[in-house]
Amino acid sequence: MSKGQDTKSAILDEAIQVASKVGFNALTIGQLADVTDMSKSGLFAHFRSKEQLQLQTLDHAREQMVALVIRPALSAPRGEARIRELFERWIDWATDTLEGGCIFISAAFEFDDQPGPMRDAIADAQRQWMELLVGLARAAVAEGHFRQDLDAEQFAFELESLTLGFHHAIRLLHDKEADFKVRTAFESLLTASRTS
Amino acid sequence: MSKGQDTKSAILDEAIQVASKVGFNALTIGQLADVTDMSKSGLFAHFRSKEQLQLQTLDHAREQMVALVIRPALSAPRGEARIRELFERWIDWATDTLEGGCIFISAAFEFDDQPGPMRDAIADAQRQWMELLVGLARAAVAEGHFRQDLDAEQFAFELESLTLGFHHAIRLLHDKEADFKVRTAFESLLTASRTS
Repeated sequence: MSKGQDTKSAILDEAIQVASKVGFNALTIGQLADVTDMSKSGLFAHFRSKEQLQLQTLDHAREQMVALVIRPALSAPRGEARIRELFERWIDWATDTLEGGCIFISAAFEFDDQPGPMRDAIADAQRQWMELLVGLARAAVAEGHFRQDLDAEQFAFELESLTLGFHHAIRLLHDKEADFKVRTAFESLLTASRTS
Repeated sequence: MSKGQDTKSAILDEAIQVASKVGFNALTIGQLADVTDMSKSGLFAHFRSKEQLQLQTLDHAREQMVALVIRPALSAPRGEARIRELFERWIDWATDTLEGGCIFISAAFEFDDQPGPMRDAIADAQRQWMELLVGLARAAVAEGHFRQDLDAEQFAFELESLTLGFHHAIRLLHDKEADFKVRTAFESLLTASRTS
C-alpha cells in the first residue's frame, strides 16, 4: 500500500471504533479529527462528505469482518465444523474486536428506517451474511451432518436471531450469563438440525 | 384527565411515532413542533429539556405496551396460553402499532453505549420485560405445560432473540417470510420446552 492508503486505512480503523460506540450518524469529520489528531481539511480531502465517510467506514468494517470472521471460518472443514468456526469467530468479533460490539448490528438498527445509500449498503451486507449462513447450512446437509429436510433459511434466521440476542444481552443488559446462554441455544439449534 | 394532560398525552403519541422512525436522539422539540403544529415555546413548557422529552416519551411507550401487550396477555389462562397471547400481541405491537417497529428495540441499540438516564430507563424496561418472560416460563412449568427442569432464563433469552430476529428481518431486510420464520421458531421453542 502507498503511504496515502496506509493513512486512510488507519483513519478508517479509528472511524470504525467511533461508529461502533456512538453510531454512524454521530460519526463526523470533526469528531474523527479529534481522535486522529488530523486537521478537518485534511480529513475532508480524504472523504469529501459525511456520507462518503460513513460508506467507506462501513466498507472497511466489511473487509475486517471478512478477514477476522469469514475467511478463517471458510478454512475449517465443510459442514458443521465450518458453522461452529464461524460462530466462534463471530462471538470474538462481537466481544473483542470493537469497543461498541458488532458494528453491523448497531448500524442495522440505526438505519433500518432511514432510506439512502447507507441503508442500502447495510442491507446488502446483511443479505450477503444471511446468504452465507444459508449456504453453510446447505453444505452441512450435503455433508450428511444436518438432516436432509432441514430448512436452511429457517436455520439462518434462528442463528441470526441468537447473535442479535447475544449482542443485546451483553451490550444493553450486561448479562454475565450471555455467553453461556448463546452457546446453549447454539448447541440446541445444531442438535435440532441433525435430527428430525 | 385534565385538558393539559390530554394535550400532553397527544403530543407524546406523536413523539413515540417520530422516535420509532428516526430514533430518540433525532427526536427534538423543534421536530415535534413541526409534526404537532405547536410552538416550540409551548412544547418547551411541557418538557423543559430534550432529555425530559426523551424520558417521558419512553415512559409513554411503556404505558402503551402494558395496555396493548402485557395486560391482555395476563388475562389469558396461566401457562403456555399466556405465553402464546403475549407473543401474538408483541407481533402486532412490532408490526402495526408504530410506523418504525418496536420502539424499545430501536432504543436499546441506540443507547446501549450511551451512559445516562435514557440508557438506564431503557435497560430497566428491558430487564422488567425479561423478568416477565422468565416468570411466564416458570408459571408454565408450574402448570405442567413445560418440563420440570426447564431453564426459564434460557427460555427468556431464546424468545427475546426471536423477537429481535423478527424485528431485524422485517425492518431492515423486508423479509416477506419473517412472520412464517418467527412463528416456526416460536413453535420449536415451545415444543423443546415441553419435552426433555
